[in-house]
Amino acid sequence: MSLKVYMPPPHGGKLVDAVIRDKDKAVEMAAGAMAYDIKPTRSIVDGSPIRNVYREIMSIAYGFFSPLDRFMTRNEVESVLKERRLLDGWLFPFPIIFDIPEEDLRKLGVKEGDRLLLRLKGQPFAILDIEEVWKFDPKDLADRTFGTPEKNSDVVKRRFDEKHPGWLIYRSMTGTALAGKVYVINEPIFKDPYTRFWYPPAKSREEIQRRGWRTVIAHQTRNVPHTGHEHLMKNAAYLGDIEPAHGILVNAIIGAKRLGDFVDEAILEGHEALSKYGYISPKRHIVTMTLWDMRYGNPLESLLHGIIRQNMGCTHHMFGRDHAAVGDYYDPYATQILWDKGIPSFGLPAPPYDLDKGLKIRPVNIKEFWYCPKCGEIAYSDTCAHTDVAQRFSGSFIRGLIAEGIEPPPIIFRPEVYRVIVKWWRVYGYPFVNKKYLELKERELEVDAPKMEIPIKG
Amino acid sequence: MSLKVYMPPPHGGKLVDAVIRDKDKAVEMAAGAMAYDIKPTRSIVDGSPIRNVYREIMSIAYGFFSPLDRFMTRNEVESVLKERRLLDGWLFPFPIIFDIPEEDLRKLGVKEGDRLLLRLKGQPFAILDIEEVWKFDPKDLADRTFGTPEKNSDVVKRRFDEKHPGWLIYRSMTGTALAGKVYVINEPIFKDPYTRFWYPPAKSREEIQRRGWRTVIAHQTRNVPHTGHEHLMKNAAYLGDIEPAHGILVNAIIGAKRLGDFVDEAILEGHEALSKYGYISPKRHIVTMTLWDMRYGNPLESLLHGIIRQNMGCTHHMFGRDHAAVGDYYDPYATQILWDKGIPSFGLPAPPYDLDKGLKIRPVNIKEFWYCPKCGEIAYSDTCAHTDVAQRFSGSFIRGLIAEGIEPPPIIFRPEVYRVIVKWWRVYGYPFVNKKYLELKERELEVDAPKMEIPIKG
Repeated sequence: MSLKVYMPPPHGGKLVDAVIRDKDKAVEMAAGAMAYDIKPTRSIVDGSPIRNVYREIMSIAYGFFSPLDRFMTRNEVESVLKERRLLDGWLFPFPIIFDIPEEDLRKLGVKEGDRLLLRLKGQPFAILDIEEVWKFDPKDLADRTFGTPEKNSDVVKRRFDEKHPGWLIYRSMTGTALAGKVYVINEPIFKDPYTRFWYPPAKSREEIQRRGWRTVIAHQTRNVPHTGHEHLMKNAAYLGDIEPAHGILVNAIIGAKRLGDFVDEAILEGHEALSKYGYISPKRHIVTMTLWDMRYGNPLESLLHGIIRQNMGCTHHMFGRDHAAVGDYYDPYATQILWDKGIPSFGLPAPPYDLDKGLKIRPVNIKEFWYCPKCGEIAYSDTCAHTDVAQRFSGSFIRGLIAEGIEPPPIIFRPEVYRVIVKWWRVYGYPFVNKKYLELKERELEVDAPKMEIPIKG
Repeated sequence: MSLKVYMPPPHGGKLVDAVIRDKDKAVEMAAGAMAYDIKPTRSIVDGSPIRNVYREIMSIAYGFFSPLDRFMTRNEVESVLKERRLLDGWLFPFPIIFDIPEEDLRKLGVKEGDRLLLRLKGQPFAILDIEEVWKFDPKDLADRTFGTPEKNSDVVKRRFDEKHPGWLIYRSMTGTALAGKVYVINEPIFKDPYTRFWYPPAKSREEIQRRGWRTVIAHQTRNVPHTGHEHLMKNAAYLGDIEPAHGILVNAIIGAKRLGDFVDEAILEGHEALSKYGYISPKRHIVTMTLWDMRYGNPLESLLHGIIRQNMGCTHHMFGRDHAAVGDYYDPYATQILWDKGIPSFGLPAPPYDLDKGLKIRPVNIKEFWYCPKCGEIAYSDTCAHTDVAQRFSGSFIRGLIAEGIEPPPIIFRPEVYRVIVKWWRVYGYPFVNKKYLELKERELEVDAPKMEIPIKG
């Protein structure tokens, strides 16, 4: 009964690599294909961009979503909705759909068996080999994706609606989908500072091996870290198997933003500052990113996180309260329920590591951290019994201070991390995401598109 | 590949229970047996008492050492010295020997097949059924028990000598041994405050189940805890399997003391204060004790600790630097080497959990904690990179402050724990073990011996 944990294989056994790095081959593949400019999914509520499918194409092609190598067919989506499995049986939580306006499809005139060239920021970017053209009811799809209080009473507490950003993404889809394999044929170039955080699974695995880490615990983030996040990471990292985890892999989800969020640049550099300034030794810390317009699916999102970080080579994943959650749609501990005993109503009768064709990454379910003046430290809610004086972290309180131009006290926010916020505040004129940032983000994305000449139609 | 860890079975499969609770049966068993008053083992250096075999009898009879239910025969000791296994194959690190002065044995006139009644503090206490009378060379036994730099160069750095208290115990034995089964026939009554910390394995297992703990991590102690110990416990306890360990079981080794040690009463109540005053929630904390004159055998001691705490129902055991070590005889990380890859020269070619008839308890090898003024907290040496300002804990520095009547600063010592030291300081007139305490300890031990009338010889 050897205890030692080693790097798990990729989900499904093999990393997807659908990036064509040979220029000639790329041109040859694209030649003659109809071309189409990727459009953002726009909210049915106010028309604002809430998703850009380029991020899903990147995550598929670079292997983050392995073994998924395509946009799903109707059958595959049905399989995902029924039992959260791909057609080949491997666990997968969300429908991944390339939707297109009906009118655009008519204009393109493409059909099953055709090849489509997708353009990003005016340049060739990817190829989609159309395996199926199919239709769906966006509202029904959205409901079935996230569950309903009737069918999923074990974890769903409230009917999903337009205030839920993930539900709104599916609800705002066009209802017409193209399924099929995708390839990136012209690698986008990341802007500063994203480049140095880009560790696609193959590179991430290499880096972990280079560093000699046997166990690596993943941390999900969409935040500039306060000391509560820092302690969550440091303390969850004691979980190894015979010794604390060798590495902490921070993986920020980079994608569509909402007003009031921290800007992505500050999130990445804020985490980086923790090791740059020694709060977490650089020897056991790495900050990375994944492109994805987060669906805030709490337990379902955690399953995707498990897949992404297993593909990146992590052995463990920490899951806290309200993991990837927004509002009170789900039980705040729905993710931990999934990783403790499963969620039968989603077709997951056992935790992901106990299911056939499930995951190999191991969960670390962990509760809250607070500041306890009696202990004189950031304390764990299950350990510190000074509940009468303990002070809970409040992201909105901290953001409130920052918005007022007040530097939060060092016990809750490291000064060097605050300086990162100030740096990007100067760039964008505001410490958080505002309308200007949203417009810029959708126009510029995280990448530049290199020029590429292809004999194209359309 | 279910991850969930549950309470391991006792070492060897079944808890030893050799306590005769039926008075009539006890009297019947003892009737007619020759009686012998237990004597302390006295140091060959200065004649001071350094061991009292009553503690070993207690640990055997109450099942702490399961499956060992007797004092070892020559063959069993040979097996332990060769491959650290009992004759039935189960791992066990130390010779457990009932030695007796040659002259006493001659006076008693007992031989193989006879029954001996052992008296403690003048009262009947235990029965030893003599299976074998055998002789040994104490110095050779001591050397082979702990290893030598020649034969065990993987972990032994220096030849053992009389300055090593464990080596000295074996070296000071008489060289004449009685082997055989032991039974406690008249349960000693613990003095205050020991009683409430007495959780023999069967009771400890019941208590763990009553509390609903699925995972429990053991902490070895011979110290009043400073905040470094506290953080070692709290942080190692994040190690569970899918969530932090439910319980922290502190197990103090109570036995022969050395000048300058903290007194046993303060050790137990000092740990108790941590949960009494909320630094570790009482919901996940229990303080217990085991009677044993510690041998300071670092990796070998850790193996015994694993056995004791597995028998008590723990799922995990934390092992730090210099575990149960004294001086520089062993590699400071010898215990972690054992629990990481084994120590072939001791007959342990793999870690105890990977050996046939090995242990089920799981190790947590953990490094140092220090106070970091930059982080503003007690930090982990592998996490905090501020090595230029980090302040290491020094037990002798803290004891120095206390001896001067200075209360250590709260960041390194909890005030409520200090008050426990002061309480016992008032009782014994000195905050640490002094000669008076040593004399009192050997005379009084931790127990009172209840009166029992038995028709006895001798």
